[in-house]
Amino acid sequence: MKSRPVQRFSRARIQIITMDIEQFRMRGKEMVEYICEFMSNIHNRRVTPDVGPGYLRPLLPSEAPQEPESWEDIMRDVESKIMPGVSEKNNHSSFPKKKTIDRYLQITHWQHPRFHAYFPAGNSFPSILGDMLSDAIGCIGFSWAASPACTELETIVCDWFGKAIGLPTDFLYFNPGSKGGGVIQGSASECILVCMLAARAQAIARLKESPAHAHLDETALLGKLMAYCSRESHSCVEKDAMICFVKLRILEPDDKSVLRGETLRQAIEADAAEGYIPFFVSTTLGTTACCSFDNLREIGPVCKKYSGVWLHVDAAYAGNSFICPELKYLMAGIEHADSFNTNTNKFLLTNFDCSCLWVRDRFKLTGALVVDPLYLQHTHADTAIDYRHWSIPLSRRFRSLKLWFVMRSYGISGLQAYIRNHVQLAKRFEALVRKDARFELCNEVVLGLVCFRAKGTDKLNQKLLSTINDSGKLHMVPARVNQRFTIRFALAAPNATASDVG
Amino acid sequence: MKSRPVQRFSRARIQIITMDIEQFRMRGKEMVEYICEFMSNIHNRRVTPDVGPGYLRPLLPSEAPQEPESWEDIMRDVESKIMPGVSEKNNHSSFPKKKTIDRYLQITHWQHPRFHAYFPAGNSFPSILGDMLSDAIGCIGFSWAASPACTELETIVCDWFGKAIGLPTDFLYFNPGSKGGGVIQGSASECILVCMLAARAQAIARLKESPAHAHLDETALLGKLMAYCSRESHSCVEKDAMICFVKLRILEPDDKSVLRGETLRQAIEADAAEGYIPFFVSTTLGTTACCSFDNLREIGPVCKKYSGVWLHVDAAYAGNSFICPELKYLMAGIEHADSFNTNTNKFLLTNFDCSCLWVRDRFKLTGALVVDPLYLQHTHADTAIDYRHWSIPLSRRFRSLKLWFVMRSYGISGLQAYIRNHVQLAKRFEALVRKDARFELCNEVVLGLVCFRAKGTDKLNQKLLSTINDSGKLHMVPARVNQRFTIRFALAAPNATASDVG
Repeated sequence: MKSRPVQRFSRARIQIITMDIEQFRMRGKEMVEYICEFMSNIHNRRVTPDVGPGYLRPLLPSEAPQEPESWEDIMRDVESKIMPGVSEKNNHSSFPKKKTIDRYLQITHWQHPRFHAYFPAGNSFPSILGDMLSDAIGCIGFSWAASPACTELETIVCDWFGKAIGLPTDFLYFNPGSKGGGVIQGSASECILVCMLAARAQAIARLKESPAHAHLDETALLGKLMAYCSRESHSCVEKDAMICFVKLRILEPDDKSVLRGETLRQAIEADAAEGYIPFFVSTTLGTTACCSFDNLREIGPVCKKYSGVWLHVDAAYAGNSFICPELKYLMAGIEHADSFNTNTNKFLLTNFDCSCLWVRDRFKLTGALVVDPLYLQHTHADTAIDYRHWSIPLSRRFRSLKLWFVMRSYGISGLQAYIRNHVQLAKRFEALVRKDARFELCNEVVLGLVCFRAKGTDKLNQKLLSTINDSGKLHMVPARVNQRFTIRFALAAPNATASDVG
Repeated sequence: MKSRPVQRFSRARIQIITMDIEQFRMRGKEMVEYICEFMSNIHNRRVTPDVGPGYLRPLLPSEAPQEPESWEDIMRDVESKIMPGVSEKNNHSSFPKKKTIDRYLQITHWQHPRFHAYFPAGNSFPSILGDMLSDAIGCIGFSWAASPACTELETIVCDWFGKAIGLPTDFLYFNPGSKGGGVIQGSASECILVCMLAARAQAIARLKESPAHAHLDETALLGKLMAYCSRESHSCVEKDAMICFVKLRILEPDDKSVLRGETLRQAIEADAAEGYIPFFVSTTLGTTACCSFDNLREIGPVCKKYSGVWLHVDAAYAGNSFICPELKYLMAGIEHADSFNTNTNKFLLTNFDCSCLWVRDRFKLTGALVVDPLYLQHTHADTAIDYRHWSIPLSRRFRSLKLWFVMRSYGISGLQAYIRNHVQLAKRFEALVRKDARFELCNEVVLGLVCFRAKGTDKLNQKLLSTINDSGKLHMVPARVNQRFTIRFALAAPNATASDVG
């Protein structure tokens, strides 16, 4: 031991004034009451807030407080300064008005019964309770050893859910000889990204071994890789391809917004003839614009034929619905897939974030993402899952708790009833559109999304949508379907009723 | 309107049996009580659980229940089946025993007063309350329009925090002429990844304009890029470089684990001489292994000299401490940085995930990540922040709420007291090591991390660490410091006291 002088420090314990357990007991229960009140009266708030960019800045101090503030002051600000930007009570007028009218997307109350924009943001009481417990446990599950329960429950719940929606058993972890398994990611973007990274690593490793390409360095091989998706794929595929630095060919779907096998085949053959190496196809079951379904039965064999093309299926919204036997036909061809994701935080009552991803071969996934310093190594690494090798971030919350709570509280039957209610209400809205000669339907209504437009110009429809959104009573967003401006009506509220649909 | 037959559907509303508001009022309060009980008695649980891989599988059904289960049943399973994997009550023996002894990392109670592994996992009651509210609001803030409050509070709170730790004003959003701003990401891995992506895009754009490189395609240019970090950088830098498909030169720090400017200069010049293009340097303030600080005052000018080299500063743990005036010297040279991240979920009492990232030029960041389909466009896009262009995922939770609650509940003074308490206790432990002739100190104790070892072989120290961890009473992890096996003692519990340090 070196004889450096010991650094002096005060022995007096520093006092931190903060909320203790007894105060949390009180404030926690008050927060439960606040949430109950909020949920009870949400229908009395505007679905879209009446504020413009920068509204909050003048309402808050420009610096953090030096001394602790009282909980009452904080919650008062929540109600008066935050909630107007989240959802404003009707006839509220004491806040800065927006200067320009936001024609399409000035929202937000995502949990409002008349919120029909985007896709639903999952939410339920069992899920909120799961997150409360996850926060209290406060573990960071980057490896099995860092939190065994966090890792193991995630694996088990992914198996539960994979079975419930009818994934091929190859995708399950607890299946003799299986190399598959599921993981919870933060978003569909990340699910597709890690699969694209795995496919990229596989493709390059394969090319390096082929005599025709062995003379090229890895970057030169990268320049030859070509990924594919449909024009109807979510924009995150494009972002993921930018990140992976691979070329992406965006294919035209058919007139029902469905990507067909023949289109893919022609593109792959043309690209291969020019020296490109097709390596990844991202398909969608339930597209964002109009909830169309790419034809996996046709696409799968094309991917198989050009061996080594990884087939990913993004079913962020629709995948949850496969929990209903009568909707499983929508995933026909899934046996061809290498990976599949669906977001329970979209259409299965679970709070964001909870994107479930399954892969047929987990070693291909982790092979692309393993980095292993000493402080993260542990002796069970050979026999246990370390989820940090399955995703971009190393650290992760105990997200499986909320999904476990949701699956158990609702039961499969309750989740099926939730999905069926949305489907039924969408059919009801579809029927209203069909009955009204002023409107036309723009998609095949299969789940909870109806795309429609007024017969007439795009401009007329833009005006119609603005009028709807400016009312503050309803909220929808547009999409381009078959080159035309279309209005999307998505069922969102967990307990939507016929009266919410009109 | 086409005259297709209207599809039939039943008008009877589907009944979903689930937790309603009144039940949540009860269960939510029970959960608050459960959390209070858990926090009150955490010291009575083992800090490391006594289970092996696969412990949970035989305890749970292999499929999700068909019918809803009662809340009592669910919580009974939480206590008997999940908590043993999280932290086991002492003398609990009814669960499967691990077969092999996990020598280093069999844990977990991250919030236990004698958990001294990794770095702390931030946790506090105001933070938990913020997450409860965030879940109830249930918004998805991918664009300003999708949730104005979610976006604006995040910008404001990042400014608050940036000011509090003394970042250069260029990094703040609300600063005349500023192009900077802050954002909350899911992890330090993602913070570094998005900065590396921005630097990559910048570098390639610049090269394409240079006469010397204009003949090369983008992939060929990519092959020339070189990033740098220290051997002491977090492993995520290596992972991020794999994702970005760029070469990474890992530099040797000096004998105090500090990356020096001269080392970087030599490496950059040698690489440039070979035709590589240096484009990104990731430095660390507060390394994972031993909490050393790279020398930004030396490194900054080197990056400046080779124009276009993006300097990132990863201060995931230590950055939070700069909230104390007496610790701000640790960030000397920060004026050279292009980007900076610190994780309040590590060392500022905020629940994971809450990694704050600031950039000097937000347009360089978003330029590398923008993808913009119609359904996400809105008319305020020119004047408002759309955080989806700042990160990998598009969707995001209302994470700023918890940080806002923490900053207001504690006040700057309370947060300073929290940091100072950890520093003081680490100094106390350091003094104990120094007093004991059997041990030697292996790092300079500046914040809450003490690295030490028994005088003797690595093997002796491995045995010592196993003995500590096998006791179930304390938990620490190893690190390699100056090529030697070292034991890390990290302060973690929010309200640690002298008696926890010994």
